[in-house]
This record gives sequence, C-alpha cells and structure tokens, in this order.
Amino acid sequence: MHLFFSEDINPDSLWIEPGQEEARHLLRTLRLKKGDAVFFTDGKGCRYTCEIYDDNLKSCKLKVTSISELVEEKKYTVHIACALTKNPARMEFFLEKATETGIDIFTPVVFKHSERIKFNTERFKKVAISAIKQSQNLFLPTINNVTSFTEFVSQSFPANTLKFLCHQEGVSHLQPLVKPNKPVVVMIGPEGDFDNREIELAKKASFQTAHLGSHRLRTETAALLACNIINLCNV
Amino acid sequence: MHLFFSEDINPDSLWIEPGQEEARHLLRTLRLKKGDAVFFTDGKGCRYTCEIYDDNLKSCKLKVTSISELVEEKKYTVHIACALTKNPARMEFFLEKATETGIDIFTPVVFKHSERIKFNTERFKKVAISAIKQSQNLFLPTINNVTSFTEFVSQSFPANTLKFLCHQEGVSHLQPLVKPNKPVVVMIGPEGDFDNREIELAKKASFQTAHLGSHRLRTETAALLACNIINLCNV
Repeated sequence: MHLFFSEDINPDSLWIEPGQEEARHLLRTLRLKKGDAVFFTDGKGCRYTCEIYDDNLKSCKLKVTSISELVEEKKYTVHIACALTKNPARMEFFLEKATETGIDIFTPVVFKHSERIKFNTERFKKVAISAIKQSQNLFLPTINNVTSFTEFVSQSFPANTLKFLCHQEGVSHLQPLVKPNKPVVVMIGPEGDFDNREIELAKKASFQTAHLGSHRLRTETAALLACNIINLCNV
Repeated sequence: MHLFFSEDINPDSLWIEPGQEEARHLLRTLRLKKGDAVFFTDGKGCRYTCEIYDDNLKSCKLKVTSISELVEEKKYTVHIACALTKNPARMEFFLEKATETGIDIFTPVVFKHSERIKFNTERFKKVAISAIKQSQNLFLPTINNVTSFTEFVSQSFPANTLKFLCHQEGVSHLQPLVKPNKPVVVMIGPEGDFDNREIELAKKASFQTAHLGSHRLRTETAALLACNIINLCNV
C-alpha cells in the first residue's frame, strides 16, 4: 500500500487533510479514488491507515480507519554533518540513499576548503520526503540549514553522543569505534580535505578521528558509508 | 599524485604507452608535462610510479621509475548480480560508489519483472575506470555482459562461495550471514521484486535468502548496501 506524508497530522483527529502536493500525488499521479486505502506518516514514527473520503483535489480529506501504529522508538541516531559537493545532484543522491537506509539529521557544513556553500534546504526536504514515501520509512530526517564549521563543532550535542571526524589519516577505521544504541555524529570533509586547524579544533571539541578504508572516497560516498556503518552496528 | 589506468601494461617493460584516452587526460585535461610523475595501475592490484618521457599526445610514453608495488591479494571477492534500473543513471551511480568502496564483479541480470534489459557494458567499464582513478583503488571490477536469471544461477561459482538472494522476506538480515575471507555473491532483484519461481530456483542452486532491513530499498540502494556489508565484514 502507498505511503504518504503530512507534517500536520493531529493525532487526536480522525481526519487527515493532506497538503496540495500530497493530494495531487494521491489523486492525479496515482489516480486514487474515494474509498481507496493508503498509509500516512507524520515522519516521526507513526503510521495511519486511512481511506480517501473526499477525492476532490481542493478539498481532499482522508478518514483514519485503524489505530495509528507507533514504531518502537529508535535507540540510536545517525547525524551526518557533511561538506557540500560542487555538483548538488551528488548530494541529493546521498540524501535519497541515506533516507532509504536510515538517517536522522543531516547538517551541511561549510569548511575552509569547501567548494560550495549554497544549500537549498527546501529542495533537500522534498528529496527526503520522497525517499521516506518510496522506502516506507516512517522517520523523516531533520535537514538543517547550512552552518559554519566553528558553529557546528562548538554546539552542544546530547550527552553520550559519539562524535567522529572522518579523514584518511584517522587512527582507526570508523567501524570498530561506533557502538550500538548511541547517538552518533560523523563529520565528512570537502574534496579538498579538512584544514589542519579544523582537525585540531574538532579534536578539542571531543571529536575522534576515524578513517573509512584506504581508498580516497568522494564526499557523498564517504557520507553514505558512514551512515551504513552506524545503521549496521545497530542491526 | 594522480593515478591512471592501462590494461596493456607489460610488467617486464620499463615503458608504459597509455591509450589515447589516458594520454588526453594526462596532457590535455591535467596539462602534465615531460618529467612530471604519476601513478599507473593495471587494475589488478599493481601500481607503477612513472615519469612522463614523451609529452606528445600521439606518441605519449612514460618511464617506470620505481618498482611496481603489488598490493596484498584480496582474500575475499564481492560479486553483485543485480537487476537494471529503469533509469541507467541510478545504476551508474551505484557502480561508481561500489567501485570506490570495493566491488570485484558486477553482473547485470534480467529477471522476469525486469523493467530494463539493455546494458551498455563499455559505458559502465568507463564509469568503473574513472572511479578507480579517482579513488586510487588498484582493482578494476569485472563488468559482465547482461545475463538471464536462469543462466546466472546455473553457472558454477568458485568453491566455498557464499551465495545470497536479497528480498524483503529473507529469513535473516544479510549482515550476520556474510563471513570474512570468502567469495560472496549477492543477487538483487528488480523494483517489481523476484518472481516466486525465481526464488525457488535460486534456493535450489544453494542461494540463501536474506533481507536488508525493514525499509523498501531501491535496487541500487540495496546493491550498494550489500556491497558495503561484505566489505565491512572484511575490515
């Protein structure tokens, strides 16, 4: 059954009014009609089974037919903080794949050697929404606005967060350093690599350095591999 | 230092004559000159340090200046046999990422529910060559021609090969089933999933079924995740 997304679901109401975009997807693209059943998610782990009650594009409305299903709360979080690639399509591909397999927070970070500093948060939110719908993932990642390296490392993360900075001279592979049931933050640098001062500042802010093998990975490949390592550690 | 590729390196010769394409990359794109040092690989684990001796595009020639370095032979192999995606760009992206992180053999397979059966082997070889150069990976994957499902499962694989078919109803997650230091083959079906008869035939041919988590992954996402699982098991 198809999964749709709405961020305005009232958990106490029997009705869901999807936005214009979801209504168009339901009624125009998929040509669903009154009485057809679909799933809706709030992107926070809840799934509602509903029936289309009004199939008019402008007044589209769905009735929740079965009690919402709350997926067990995740015991770990995946936060990838990553330089932007020159070609934004590569970053979109990363976010699509990461959302399919599991990512909780994505923060685009501007480093000294960053080649790109512009980031269209709204566009990336759309990529993530489309990926959760396609993969039936009930957790929509948080897409943060672009932030500077200094701002990023100096923020306070939840207690017991494991913080890593991945680069080729890291002391150990990331895999054995990641532990299950913990919030994990991984920072991935730009193609031109981190500046030495950035590595020093990150270490001072309790980031551990880690590598991802002997190959020189592209930014989006490294980000996706880091994401997979954290998820696989929690299988 | 830049890495280049040539499949015609004679290990007994002090000279490397790159093909037209590599010569153009060396001399035109990167504007390297006589005397500049670069690496060359045969894609089979050897790396040659060389110096440009003749920087004329038509007669370009390099002199090997240091003994070739043979990377330790890999104790495992990653073979991904995968349905082709409707959009070939998704498959190219998969192959690029898989080559960066490590894949030995890629076989495009035609299943009953395949949406695409055409495959441009030469184009995909170029994607793989470009990815090994970029990532400094000395192993060029073998890109097989497209093959039918029946032909694929009935072939004989090297002794002690672990064979998996990934689908959502697999008995266990793939991760705990993969063992280090073994050749591993993973088959990934089309968006329309495997046909039941295909699953039966694969089981008869000693393929174990495995899943990749609860999300419904796109073909190329599943293929890349399977690839990462095998490589991470051998870290």
